[in-house]
Amino acid sequence: MEKITVLGAGSWGTALAMVLADNGHDVRLWAHRHELIEEINKNKRNERYLPGIELPANITGFSGIHEALEGIQYVVLAVPTKAIREVLHQAQTSLQQSVTIIHVSKGIEPDSLLRISEIIRDSMPKEKLNDVVVLSGPSHAEEVSLRQPTTLTASSENMNAAEKVQDLFMNHHFRVYTNPDVIGVEIGGALKNIIALAAGITDGLGYGDNAKAALITRGLTEIARLGSAMGANPLTFSGLTGIGDLIVTCTSVHSRNWRAGNLLGKGHKLDEVLENMGMVVEGVRTTKAAYQLSEKYEVKMPITAALYDVLFHQKPPKEAVDVLMARVKTHEMEDLVNIMDDKSFLK
Amino acid sequence: MEKITVLGAGSWGTALAMVLADNGHDVRLWAHRHELIEEINKNKRNERYLPGIELPANITGFSGIHEALEGIQYVVLAVPTKAIREVLHQAQTSLQQSVTIIHVSKGIEPDSLLRISEIIRDSMPKEKLNDVVVLSGPSHAEEVSLRQPTTLTASSENMNAAEKVQDLFMNHHFRVYTNPDVIGVEIGGALKNIIALAAGITDGLGYGDNAKAALITRGLTEIARLGSAMGANPLTFSGLTGIGDLIVTCTSVHSRNWRAGNLLGKGHKLDEVLENMGMVVEGVRTTKAAYQLSEKYEVKMPITAALYDVLFHQKPPKEAVDVLMARVKTHEMEDLVNIMDDKSFLK
Repeated sequence: MEKITVLGAGSWGTALAMVLADNGHDVRLWAHRHELIEEINKNKRNERYLPGIELPANITGFSGIHEALEGIQYVVLAVPTKAIREVLHQAQTSLQQSVTIIHVSKGIEPDSLLRISEIIRDSMPKEKLNDVVVLSGPSHAEEVSLRQPTTLTASSENMNAAEKVQDLFMNHHFRVYTNPDVIGVEIGGALKNIIALAAGITDGLGYGDNAKAALITRGLTEIARLGSAMGANPLTFSGLTGIGDLIVTCTSVHSRNWRAGNLLGKGHKLDEVLENMGMVVEGVRTTKAAYQLSEKYEVKMPITAALYDVLFHQKPPKEAVDVLMARVKTHEMEDLVNIMDDKSFLK
Repeated sequence: MEKITVLGAGSWGTALAMVLADNGHDVRLWAHRHELIEEINKNKRNERYLPGIELPANITGFSGIHEALEGIQYVVLAVPTKAIREVLHQAQTSLQQSVTIIHVSKGIEPDSLLRISEIIRDSMPKEKLNDVVVLSGPSHAEEVSLRQPTTLTASSENMNAAEKVQDLFMNHHFRVYTNPDVIGVEIGGALKNIIALAAGITDGLGYGDNAKAALITRGLTEIARLGSAMGANPLTFSGLTGIGDLIVTCTSVHSRNWRAGNLLGKGHKLDEVLENMGMVVEGVRTTKAAYQLSEKYEVKMPITAALYDVLFHQKPPKEAVDVLMARVKTHEMEDLVNIMDDKSFLK
């Protein structure tokens, strides 16, 4: 049994706290909103984020980050990408000991172009950080909270740390694989939100499953192309954190990014959509970051570029999708073979 | 403009005839059922297979195969795998000239373990066959008949023939890529039906999107593993005919295989389900063939093996899925790296 603190009591942080509690750990769930914590402690509920779900008894809510982090070794970081620096700033001033951070966020920081594990290393003093592990894969929080079968990947530069995370979370309904390719896992997780936005747009425009399947397939190709240029193993994109997460995000009405895209496809304006959602839509910021990455690494990303024009230059969605569909006939394998070329990972 | 005969006036054969007709070709659509052909010629309709759709004027129905094939160079073969030998037997006795056969079926012949292009070569005298091209990808016939955007792959051992097929079919809403890997394209198309059956079962059992995404991801891995052992390029499984077709088949209620699996998951017996469907469920035969192939090539295919037990040994679906989920924790990349090992395609 370990003492583990989950920072962030949104739907995903709360669902993961439930998994750890089911496994017998002593779980502290932190959020800055006092009324959320009170509800968690008094009613064993988090109605805003996981309506109708009863939380296990061994989850305790904290609204003070200092108390939440006292004496613990493992921190699960479950806050939106945008909030990570601020939360870690608060955390490190409270921490007396060093911790391993397990992050479950999906995004890239625009302008700095850092991945989440890089933001964490950038924000934390070395002496307070043991390891960084990313836990990612196809996983709606709602289903995890209902203990439905779910499969994820834990990845770290230190495989012992990834295996420890596997042990902490693994149970009958929550399966954890490991993968040493941190770059691939983080890029796949972040960029799937772009394709989910685009898939929502094609659905909103009234196109069918054929178009969406083509979009997801071509989307995976451009994610793999960028990821490989950044040093990822292209095979990671064929795994749970690549195609697996992409499928679940693009084909489920649970997905915020898909829902936001859907509204855009139906003709709503971006501002209106974001206001309407009331939750963070990571894909919007990630589109900007991925567009910048594609320029930095000189990688062609036609879907990302089209979406960038829709989100930031008011291009009509239908026009953008039609341009994508009408690209010149070509040899499907060229793209994929280019990804694999000059790669030494197989040697 | 070419004269092209489509053998088989089911939903897919009819939708493809429409694409060719839209492109200005002279299209002959053959089926042995006389009343179907009469409806096509009199009413420009095929209500049984494409309800509510008006067929273009330049499609002519034929119930005599001899007349349908007279003087043509291109045959689109759109009949269930089971019927291919019989239809080609009829065709070759009628043919005076040699033809290129474009096949759009998805399956493997049990026992002989031949792919569709191999069945065609096995059934046709050499002097009557120019080339064999497979046209495959994520494509519901209903959407193609509505001229919604669709993207496919044409593959042949002779790339000139694949490019000719690309030219015949390509238009604004129907995009065709080419790929020289016939084995990969055919294996991906056939085996996705197995995963669709399995996905239908998990949905029928009431499991969620997380489980289904994991199943699709792991399913793709085992398809790629078998395909590679048979000589396919593993990258083909990341393309339209691999993951693309798998997504559309596993996530759409249009899919017969998914629907059959769904009924099995809900507790219906196989005989009952097949009777209920009233259409061919290719995945059942393909599961048997794939199981035999996995033994022949000594490749582990846990999802196929589990489904084989459900279909042919009355194993309860829930038991089979639970065994799949509970497999020991492992290193996700091992599977994928094993696929790529000892492969010379990158050299």
